[in-house]
Amino acid sequence: MAEGKLLRSFLEVPRDSHFPIQNLPFGVFRRRGQPEGPPRPATAIGDFALDLAAVSAAAQETLNMFLGLGRPAWKEARATLQKILSADEPVLRDNEALRKNCLVPMSDVEMLLPITVGDYTDFFCSVHHARNCGFIFRGPQTPVNPNWFHLPVGYHGRASSVIISGTDIIRPRGQGHPTGSSQPYFGPSQKLDFELEMAAIVGPGNELGKPIDIADAEDHIFGLVVMNDWSARDIQAWETIPLGPFLGKSFSTSVSPWIVTLDALKPFACEAPKQEPEPLPYLAEKNHINYDIPLEAWIKPKEQSEASVVTKTNFKHMYWTVTQQLAHHTVNGCNLRPGDMFATGTLSGPEPDSLGCLLEITWNGQKEISVGNSIRKFLQDGDEVILTACCKGEDYNVGFGTCTGKILPSLP
Amino acid sequence: MAEGKLLRSFLEVPRDSHFPIQNLPFGVFRRRGQPEGPPRPATAIGDFALDLAAVSAAAQETLNMFLGLGRPAWKEARATLQKILSADEPVLRDNEALRKNCLVPMSDVEMLLPITVGDYTDFFCSVHHARNCGFIFRGPQTPVNPNWFHLPVGYHGRASSVIISGTDIIRPRGQGHPTGSSQPYFGPSQKLDFELEMAAIVGPGNELGKPIDIADAEDHIFGLVVMNDWSARDIQAWETIPLGPFLGKSFSTSVSPWIVTLDALKPFACEAPKQEPEPLPYLAEKNHINYDIPLEAWIKPKEQSEASVVTKTNFKHMYWTVTQQLAHHTVNGCNLRPGDMFATGTLSGPEPDSLGCLLEITWNGQKEISVGNSIRKFLQDGDEVILTACCKGEDYNVGFGTCTGKILPSLP
Repeated sequence: MAEGKLLRSFLEVPRDSHFPIQNLPFGVFRRRGQPEGPPRPATAIGDFALDLAAVSAAAQETLNMFLGLGRPAWKEARATLQKILSADEPVLRDNEALRKNCLVPMSDVEMLLPITVGDYTDFFCSVHHARNCGFIFRGPQTPVNPNWFHLPVGYHGRASSVIISGTDIIRPRGQGHPTGSSQPYFGPSQKLDFELEMAAIVGPGNELGKPIDIADAEDHIFGLVVMNDWSARDIQAWETIPLGPFLGKSFSTSVSPWIVTLDALKPFACEAPKQEPEPLPYLAEKNHINYDIPLEAWIKPKEQSEASVVTKTNFKHMYWTVTQQLAHHTVNGCNLRPGDMFATGTLSGPEPDSLGCLLEITWNGQKEISVGNSIRKFLQDGDEVILTACCKGEDYNVGFGTCTGKILPSLP
Repeated sequence: MAEGKLLRSFLEVPRDSHFPIQNLPFGVFRRRGQPEGPPRPATAIGDFALDLAAVSAAAQETLNMFLGLGRPAWKEARATLQKILSADEPVLRDNEALRKNCLVPMSDVEMLLPITVGDYTDFFCSVHHARNCGFIFRGPQTPVNPNWFHLPVGYHGRASSVIISGTDIIRPRGQGHPTGSSQPYFGPSQKLDFELEMAAIVGPGNELGKPIDIADAEDHIFGLVVMNDWSARDIQAWETIPLGPFLGKSFSTSVSPWIVTLDALKPFACEAPKQEPEPLPYLAEKNHINYDIPLEAWIKPKEQSEASVVTKTNFKHMYWTVTQQLAHHTVNGCNLRPGDMFATGTLSGPEPDSLGCLLEITWNGQKEISVGNSIRKFLQDGDEVILTACCKGEDYNVGFGTCTGKILPSLP
């Protein structure tokens, strides 16, 4: 089956849809109103979820096993789905009973976390974000630590609190900096923030002690999702020396439900930023690419009917590519497993209106921004944050849908 | 069934055994030479593993489900096991066929990782270790960061590379500090170290957004294991700013196979260090206790027939208790799951011969120590590290066995 602009589905897919036949992301859903119903693997096509269990023997409750099969199996599944959904293929097009059984309107599905996340790693790969955070937290001397240009700095995140888009976020409580000689502040976070990130989902893993060569790294990455690395800046600032972020992050991490495959993203590949100094050989790659994925963050305050955009940035600003992240992660022998997540870190761009979190946008609350007819330094209770990503092609888009979450008040 | 010194098993248990009837730790084994055989939950009694699947319907391949049941179920299982193993009870004592079927000599078992580790957190709870590391890595100004006395500092570790005692450790490769304006060093770690720690194994978890009150924290902790948090100090030192340890730790973390329950450790409870300043209310506990668990680290160089002790310390030096760690970990709403691990951090004591890692013992390689008739600054290929822990009672011990690992050369 040929890829590209000529391919068309028998289903009508709106021109601006995130999910044309060229995308075909993978996810897991349950029919709305059937809380006891089994989770079903699916792909998205236009405004429908295609229930894969209804068209094949696939009946896993997560995608982990499929992810472990590797790219040949993914390509075969993709080709099969493109075939049965194409305008020229009668098998599904002309079988009304089968269509009714396997095509579920998006309005009738509840998306679930598509993978069991064994381990989740958060990298720090936008130099703009690294520089701004360094400046805010450590001052102007060395905003970017010298190691940053030699390796993709990262840390382990919390896997248990990775949640699916749409889940509410309870404002975390915790300790913030003491003022003077007082006890530290304790209470609801006063600096609750979003972080606009993407995350790579690992396919086949590696055995402990056997690094993955950078030349093979791409074969171990299934696809990408949009991620909100919710952050409590006051908790983070107080706890973080010397072992890094912990409770300022671990209360929730939201991901978008549809994993967009690298195969679908190929037409949007672009050169990654030139690296200076040259990376060490284990990080040097022939095909040093990012993807041109425009990203947006919106906030919808409770009392407003519309969301307002607060930043526009792009995945392509990432200095260390996902393949470099993967080669680095395993160079010490660390083992990956199917379904592991690598997040990019906040994807800030170089322009003032392309910063990926409120910490940077409001310079740690030193200035306010307008959100519709409200103002914000950090997130308030009732705010809904909507992240979205969509590659714009000449004839079609390849999108990720949204990654959303609404802030609920802290526990009393 | 009464606990205490009067209880005796019908099996002869040597006086210095780690596993008398007062201990009864839980683990998972496979019969040696049966690589395809199913993992079996077990308890240890003297020199035998008691196969729990052979005496009850328990046939889980890990202990996670049992851990999730909570203390009433654990106490009932413990009481039942103490009963059937006691000298006065004929059911097993007088049934040779059953004994043959369920009591497996330790020499015939291969111990397996007893739990699926969802998330693993490493704390930093010995003030002596914190002070020494701060001094070595950051200098004498503020060796202990001000937050340390207000909260149990910790970070997320890597769950995939938690391995069972006895698994070999391949020396990791990675980047170390550049000297002057050169590229960073890349190659096998030149500062490979052990860290003598213990880890708490979580029982019932909590729902995301619902913290566990410190008064209930103990009910969520099943027991303890001995842990070696292998560390590559050169990799760690270069990568760690600003997000904390990553590849310097994630190549392997070894745990001892038998989880010793808090119930078995009760007779060895002791007051925990007085805390100054007073902890915030969410960390203040009525019953502020540690356990008196003597710990030792031994090294056996390849060319020597005997291991030599390199440090002796104690679990009781921990400033922040495991219950405080748990209350802190969840105060932001972070969810725990059965089988999660909380490690203590290196359990250094106050004396020069009670330091828990070579970084401290050799002051980052500035001095050498004798190991039998060899000298060491850091670990060499072929070295086997043996950690052990054993509570010494008047009439019996409650021990953990050993946590071992041998260093294999790095990949070429």
